[in-house]
Amino acid sequence: MKVVTLGEIMLRLAPEGYLRFTQADKFTATYGGGEANVAISLANYGADACFITKLPDNDIGQAAINSLRKFGVDTSHIVRGGKRVGIYYLEKGASQRASKVIYDRAGSSISEAKAEEFDWDSIFANADWFHFTGITPAISDACAELTKAACEQAKKRGVSVSCDLNYRKKLWSREKAKNVMSELMQYVDVCIANEEDAKDVFGIEAEKTDITGGKLHKDGYKSVALQLAKQFGFKKVAITLRTSISASENNWAAMLYNGEYLFSKEYNIKIVDRVGGGDSFGGGLIYGLLSGMDDGAALEFAVAASCLKHSIEGDYNLVSVDEVKKLAEGDGSGRVQR
Amino acid sequence: MKVVTLGEIMLRLAPEGYLRFTQADKFTATYGGGEANVAISLANYGADACFITKLPDNDIGQAAINSLRKFGVDTSHIVRGGKRVGIYYLEKGASQRASKVIYDRAGSSISEAKAEEFDWDSIFANADWFHFTGITPAISDACAELTKAACEQAKKRGVSVSCDLNYRKKLWSREKAKNVMSELMQYVDVCIANEEDAKDVFGIEAEKTDITGGKLHKDGYKSVALQLAKQFGFKKVAITLRTSISASENNWAAMLYNGEYLFSKEYNIKIVDRVGGGDSFGGGLIYGLLSGMDDGAALEFAVAASCLKHSIEGDYNLVSVDEVKKLAEGDGSGRVQR
Amino acid sequence: MKVVTLGEIMLRLAPEGYLRFTQADKFTATYGGGEANVAISLANYGADACFITKLPDNDIGQAAINSLRKFGVDTSHIVRGGKRVGIYYLEKGASQRASKVIYDRAGSSISEAKAEEFDWDSIFANADWFHFTGITPAISDACAELTKAACEQAKKRGVSVSCDLNYRKKLWSREKAKNVMSELMQYVDVCIANEEDAKDVFGIEAEKTDITGGKLHKDGYKSVALQLAKQFGFKKVAITLRTSISASENNWAAMLYNGEYLFSKEYNIKIVDRVGGGDSFGGGLIYGLLSGMDDGAALEFAVAASCLKHSIEGDYNLVSVDEVKKLAEGDGSGRVQR
Amino acid sequence: MKVVTLGEIMLRLAPEGYLRFTQADKFTATYGGGEANVAISLANYGADACFITKLPDNDIGQAAINSLRKFGVDTSHIVRGGKRVGIYYLEKGASQRASKVIYDRAGSSISEAKAEEFDWDSIFANADWFHFTGITPAISDACAELTKAACEQAKKRGVSVSCDLNYRKKLWSREKAKNVMSELMQYVDVCIANEEDAKDVFGIEAEKTDITGGKLHKDGYKSVALQLAKQFGFKKVAITLRTSISASENNWAAMLYNGEYLFSKEYNIKIVDRVGGGDSFGGGLIYGLLSGMDDGAALEFAVAASCLKHSIEGDYNLVSVDEVKKLAEGDGSGRVQR
Amino acid sequence: MKVVTLGEIMLRLAPEGYLRFTQADKFTATYGGGEANVAISLANYGADACFITKLPDNDIGQAAINSLRKFGVDTSHIVRGGKRVGIYYLEKGASQRASKVIYDRAGSSISEAKAEEFDWDSIFANADWFHFTGITPAISDACAELTKAACEQAKKRGVSVSCDLNYRKKLWSREKAKNVMSELMQYVDVCIANEEDAKDVFGIEAEKTDITGGKLHKDGYKSVALQLAKQFGFKKVAITLRTSISASENNWAAMLYNGEYLFSKEYNIKIVDRVGGGDSFGGGLIYGLLSGMDDGAALEFAVAASCLKHSIEGDYNLVSVDEVKKLAEGDGSGRVQR
Amino acid sequence: MKVVTLGEIMLRLAPEGYLRFTQADKFTATYGGGEANVAISLANYGADACFITKLPDNDIGQAAINSLRKFGVDTSHIVRGGKRVGIYYLEKGASQRASKVIYDRAGSSISEAKAEEFDWDSIFANADWFHFTGITPAISDACAELTKAACEQAKKRGVSVSCDLNYRKKLWSREKAKNVMSELMQYVDVCIANEEDAKDVFGIEAEKTDITGGKLHKDGYKSVALQLAKQFGFKKVAITLRTSISASENNWAAMLYNGEYLFSKEYNIKIVDRVGGGDSFGGGLIYGLLSGMDDGAALEFAVAASCLKHSIEGDYNLVSVDEVKKLAEGDGSGRVQR
Repeated sequence: MKVVTLGEIMLRLAPEGYLRFTQADKFTATYGGGEANVAISLANYGADACFITKLPDNDIGQAAINSLRKFGVDTSHIVRGGKRVGIYYLEKGASQRASKVIYDRAGSSISEAKAEEFDWDSIFANADWFHFTGITPAISDACAELTKAACEQAKKRGVSVSCDLNYRKKLWSREKAKNVMSELMQYVDVCIANEEDAKDVFGIEAEKTDITGGKLHKDGYKSVALQLAKQFGFKKVAITLRTSISASENNWAAMLYNGEYLFSKEYNIKIVDRVGGGDSFGGGLIYGLLSGMDDGAALEFAVAASCLKHSIEGDYNLVSVDEVKKLAEGDGSGRVQR
Repeated sequence: MKVVTLGEIMLRLAPEGYLRFTQADKFTATYGGGEANVAISLANYGADACFITKLPDNDIGQAAINSLRKFGVDTSHIVRGGKRVGIYYLEKGASQRASKVIYDRAGSSISEAKAEEFDWDSIFANADWFHFTGITPAISDACAELTKAACEQAKKRGVSVSCDLNYRKKLWSREKAKNVMSELMQYVDVCIANEEDAKDVFGIEAEKTDITGGKLHKDGYKSVALQLAKQFGFKKVAITLRTSISASENNWAAMLYNGEYLFSKEYNIKIVDRVGGGDSFGGGLIYGLLSGMDDGAALEFAVAASCLKHSIEGDYNLVSVDEVKKLAEGDGSGRVQR
Repeated sequence: MKVVTLGEIMLRLAPEGYLRFTQADKFTATYGGGEANVAISLANYGADACFITKLPDNDIGQAAINSLRKFGVDTSHIVRGGKRVGIYYLEKGASQRASKVIYDRAGSSISEAKAEEFDWDSIFANADWFHFTGITPAISDACAELTKAACEQAKKRGVSVSCDLNYRKKLWSREKAKNVMSELMQYVDVCIANEEDAKDVFGIEAEKTDITGGKLHKDGYKSVALQLAKQFGFKKVAITLRTSISASENNWAAMLYNGEYLFSKEYNIKIVDRVGGGDSFGGGLIYGLLSGMDDGAALEFAVAASCLKHSIEGDYNLVSVDEVKKLAEGDGSGRVQR
Repeated sequence: MKVVTLGEIMLRLAPEGYLRFTQADKFTATYGGGEANVAISLANYGADACFITKLPDNDIGQAAINSLRKFGVDTSHIVRGGKRVGIYYLEKGASQRASKVIYDRAGSSISEAKAEEFDWDSIFANADWFHFTGITPAISDACAELTKAACEQAKKRGVSVSCDLNYRKKLWSREKAKNVMSELMQYVDVCIANEEDAKDVFGIEAEKTDITGGKLHKDGYKSVALQLAKQFGFKKVAITLRTSISASENNWAAMLYNGEYLFSKEYNIKIVDRVGGGDSFGGGLIYGLLSGMDDGAALEFAVAASCLKHSIEGDYNLVSVDEVKKLAEGDGSGRVQR
Repeated sequence: MKVVTLGEIMLRLAPEGYLRFTQADKFTATYGGGEANVAISLANYGADACFITKLPDNDIGQAAINSLRKFGVDTSHIVRGGKRVGIYYLEKGASQRASKVIYDRAGSSISEAKAEEFDWDSIFANADWFHFTGITPAISDACAELTKAACEQAKKRGVSVSCDLNYRKKLWSREKAKNVMSELMQYVDVCIANEEDAKDVFGIEAEKTDITGGKLHKDGYKSVALQLAKQFGFKKVAITLRTSISASENNWAAMLYNGEYLFSKEYNIKIVDRVGGGDSFGGGLIYGLLSGMDDGAALEFAVAASCLKHSIEGDYNLVSVDEVKKLAEGDGSGRVQR
Repeated sequence: MKVVTLGEIMLRLAPEGYLRFTQADKFTATYGGGEANVAISLANYGADACFITKLPDNDIGQAAINSLRKFGVDTSHIVRGGKRVGIYYLEKGASQRASKVIYDRAGSSISEAKAEEFDWDSIFANADWFHFTGITPAISDACAELTKAACEQAKKRGVSVSCDLNYRKKLWSREKAKNVMSELMQYVDVCIANEEDAKDVFGIEAEKTDITGGKLHKDGYKSVALQLAKQFGFKKVAITLRTSISASENNWAAMLYNGEYLFSKEYNIKIVDRVGGGDSFGGGLIYGLLSGMDDGAALEFAVAASCLKHSIEGDYNLVSVDEVKKLAEGDGSGRVQR
């Protein structure tokens, strides 16, 4: 099983514990980004995960690569050059105080990368799947072109393509997002989104949902999934369903539309680190589908995987197939494993 | 908007995380004290906050000052001299294990400070408000006199005065508290208290309240507020309503009496650090009232502010007006702010 | 009051906070083990606690001893020699992710210790109680013999004996456990177990209990206790009742059978560190019984003590008699103790 | 005494201790930059130090401001806006392994600042001195213009001007540096440089000096100073003389030319943190000159101050006038001060 | 071998690494004090070391006791009560920047202790040696009386007495020191001092010594020792000889006068933590003399022991007899011990 | 360039900074071992480095693998199974206090590994070099056989073989070492040793060398190299020359015999971490020889590389070819690289 992902990997700088930015005199330094996170998930499940990006030829770029190599991601196709590693600052919230993200990613190496810098034949040799998110084409026009090129390279080799819509309002307008993403959707087999993404990117809305109010309306989600599938011809549409009770506690579930509407179990989560939660869903779903699970099992695997992610520090979901399956099969009691 | 506060700022020494005192080989060193905490709150809201105290002319005294300057509090009227910075040791509790405070504040510089050491004209130039707590006069007879002098200085300049009763049984007896505080109340416009304070200091009791039992009785609080207002002629009485479910979880609300009885929303809080919670209520209330909110809005602002304080490490409430308003207006979902 | 305990003390290596093993570049290093933990509990209650084991004559062995001396445990009868200090690695779980223990204890000094290396007369001089767990005889055949010798030494001096069954499947099979433990039970006055232990060691089962499902069935526990008492003639049987809601939240209670069935209060616990929870129950129970409490009070003391343990980092329960009594008497509100 | 400085303040991210970038999972986060460092030095000596820059209106910008306010620097004239806080990564070297700096400062807020954003009248009210370095005009054309505008504002108010040449090859070419700096030199009264700067910026060379070889040639320095003074009409030229024995040990001295050639004592330094060493020399020199010391004493004060800086973590020199004078007067024995 | 020491044990609060007080947001918390440090040294050499003091009945007092118990010091005769644990703040210097100590010890429990609170018969049962320093009688008049009482108790039981003069100018004047100490000297068999102490306490001066200048004059030390021995009738006088090159590097040696003048080897020390260096000399000397070494060997043992102390964090000298002997016998090469 | 190394990788547990084992409540956890360290060196130089060993199928084993993958070492041929990861505890010395290593490696997975578990064809495909040390055959008889098998596999494919003698007295006797190693030497082309190794393993002595005395005698080293070369037919013999001034300062050089005697430059090193110093020499030498440097240049490269290692925390030498060459070419000034 070989999966290729393309995107930006950033340095994540987070104050220790629950300190606010203005209290911090240390930052925990990890690395992450939507597509890198998916690659890590897959490498931890034993898949061949190949992450492609561009990183500067300095020690910070190297440290980002090392963070991927450490968990077995293939980094041999990462291009070196350009100016800087993008950064995001993360302040962890608690109770009623929300987590806060400050992006400092303009001018990163990937933002100026071009398709011809990558060796597509090697990258997609034996590949089964290609994954990207709506963040990558939002970074720059060059990145939008690069993403399209990657999609074309994947498609022409018969590689399945998935996309997590992931709208980032700081990176582009809804109008631009709609234009660029609509064109990319022609390559996509499996679309992952949350309700806000569908609205922000494509203007597709569910009825009667109040995201901050903590109530989920199944009919609304069905409607969104159906509209997405119809409009772009996706084989499957997965929608993650987060109910934010507070910064410390969320409920978490998902829906998969494949002609039918499958709803997963819902988990009540005490949060350690919720960043990367959506990405770990994507990683789990790809693994589930590629490893031959039926759609319902793949959905439960993906939701259990991303539930566990919320208990793990950093962007990366560091769990094994066995751990995910144990939870998906119903043991969330947290009893000590000796 | 300029607010003056007078009191003691102490070095706070806390074991890391949930370690007990006998496990600690490091102490997190921050600074705090009721009135300093109020000054910090106000400075963070953009007010001119002037904190007055006396601190020794050594590096620990300087570090205390720096902790205030860092957040923009005016420390230029702090008197230097005397023997030591008072200390309090704080062990953070969890679940059924209570937090524990050991005071080591005898002989601190402020305990021997005299009114004539302070430049009252400069201190109160353009001031709108003066705030103190029941801790300051409890420190020593000298401090009681100093507090009275400050009240007089404030009053003769037409500055509003607020007092948080804050009874500390380790510092003085109920009898002495009653005597000293009763005299100081003549200067006070806005009184802040919790139910225990009113009883401990003035013997004013609410009926039918069991503080450790977790039930709040609205009628009892109304009764306490009314008695306080009547006895001392306060314009407003604010009472904070804490229900302690465990060291990790509290409910938090407040009441304001201004002729009418206004009750705020109640928040369920997962606690990061509850010390300074009351002070942050005071800071929020003063800001709300001075910035022209109506009493109900000021009360909600104060409760939301202090709710957020419980998610922040250290005595100081490091939140902005926007953050408080967002919560007061109903968004406590803790969704990531990107 | 003098209590002797015999067993292995291990170096415990735990990643900081909620980090997974593969994320850790530091391990918090503490020491612990079932019987050492009981000794610590008792020393903290003011009892004379004498812990016996064998530790290598190197600095790691010394550090283990120092960790006990620090809290006043008598370590003067610990034998020095052998090859190594056993280790256990602990990864702390959260929410649906379980805590994980990796044992690396083979070949530790205690595993090769012999009865004749210990000075039993001094060890049991003035002793009132001897405690061991099912872990010690499981370590090796030598340890099983050593445990038996210690029991004989205790019994012939009229010292009461307690045993916590504590089945460890990595150390021995159920068959071997049954054989060895059955013989040791002849010396035991007070047996402590949880429902799984009784089943794993002696095949004694309660009906209708689903441990991961979070439901407790009182009748089942009664049945287990009665069977244990009948089969081995125990004076008292104590059964701890843990309901694991998640790795972050447990319910905790216990039952004592002394002819009658006594059930304690149940506590809802937000977990800081659950390792050593059972041991702290044992320490509390021994203290309660030896200090003259009636069985019901001793049970409540033991449950309150072990409830508090869950809020304390490390294996050791570092609480005072006053703190335990305060909780046992009903104050679990966690209000700050100033 | 009021001193104004203008420049960029950056977030400094440094691995802990002597860890390399690829080993770090934490960065110590402090703030610094040539002119901010000078402001801090002066504030610590009791001067009114006003630092002007532009910082983004986010929490990282605020944290930079707070780092200055903490030590009493006037930050009220800092303009808020623009995109980001510049960053530099610092890896501390030891023995033969050199320290390493990676700059990531492109696109910082100050790089796009314009003179008309600043309130020059307030900034220079009562000012005695204006200081800048060769880094500021190198940041961008806008910064070069801003620097020139500030110099003009200073000069027209009769404020003395100093400049530390500080050539940064990553920011501009020698050619551009020469053009821009030559024009700025018309405003400068006191020029500070090291031998490399004079060569890199103006092509002015000393004879027979091998900087990596550890030998200083007094005649060479005299020649450089004289050439600088002649070419630009400086009243004083100060040249710092660093002999780098290893990353752990440097010799440190300076020369001042004011018509005569004054050489300071030389210190042998065991290095804690050498970044900001030159800036602390500038801060010391300005203080010495402004506080009425004769040139020789001011030089010794500046060298002693910067010697002490090498023993202090972070960019900022946190020493008092008394500490500097004690060393300048000959007590470098490091005996404990009780 | 049993040694009793009497004095104050303080909480030592030190910023991490080389941070200055105003940079610290954490303090490393250890415990120490002249006589406690001597007790620790002796316990580490296998002696029975009994430390007596008074400590408050709170967790900070308990933590101080635990720090001693951990290393095997007998703390069973420590009296509990009084108000507080004395504190000293320590900022570690480097290179030309001196270490800095801020004392905050007024009003500590020991300062109000009385002789009748101690059980002298038990304390001195089987004791061979009693040690105190000039710090204890300086704390308060009560402490001076307590020290005298302890000396009398020791002497009447034939216990040898040693005193380290240790003048602390913040605690008393030279006049008072001379009066009090002169009376106590009648009990002393072995006097330990450095050159400054002899001058500060008794006005006894060596000729031609410049302490900050780094030069030692043997004749001067001989003269001081002889004067001390003559004036008070000491059997032995030991003088430590520190040459302070910088805060990072000292030379260290000692002299013993026993009728003859014995000079030890001199060590060049790269300093990790120099506090407690003198105390570790005292501990080493007492051990050497009590264990039957001849005076020259005891002196070399003491100097080697205290040389090693400078490489160890905290007040306590944590070295074994073997480690000290290895160095005393000439192996200071620091080769890895595998 | 592909290099294969075979050996044990251990978990290294080291107290932070200069703390002694009995002071540590945290251990820095890194991984290392002679041959793994060589593999890391080579991977950092851009070579294909393949490390083979056996590690348990648990998270500690995985963490060891991840530590290698992070830096690009090929771990795909590591066999999983067996019982445990070997451990070594490291206490860092300073000044006259030596570093201390406690081994706890008995029963590690590699100790029971067999040749048939490894896929030699894949391992040695395209390999240019095979390296092992005298530690591996010392671990167990199985390891000795495994080492021999690996040597045979290498030789029959024409792969060059190097061995670092590395005698470990805790693992085997001199007699056994001589027997086993003598047989292995038939496969070795390049032998690396220090003077002690040659004596300990083969009884080959240099004249007139006093290792702890700090003096190096060139003739002695020549004699040792010549004897080694003659006895075993090595093509090259490299001898590292360490002069241990203290635990904080060493001199470091090396000699290479290839028919002629080449001596390298000598470096004076201020030590950050000296463990792995010898291994980094080996890694540097192999790189130098394989990359086509002449023997003198390869020797200087190896010595410079290992000089730099002493400034880096952990076993692994994390330096680039450029950094090593810069030092080898003479720039050890440690000037900041911007």
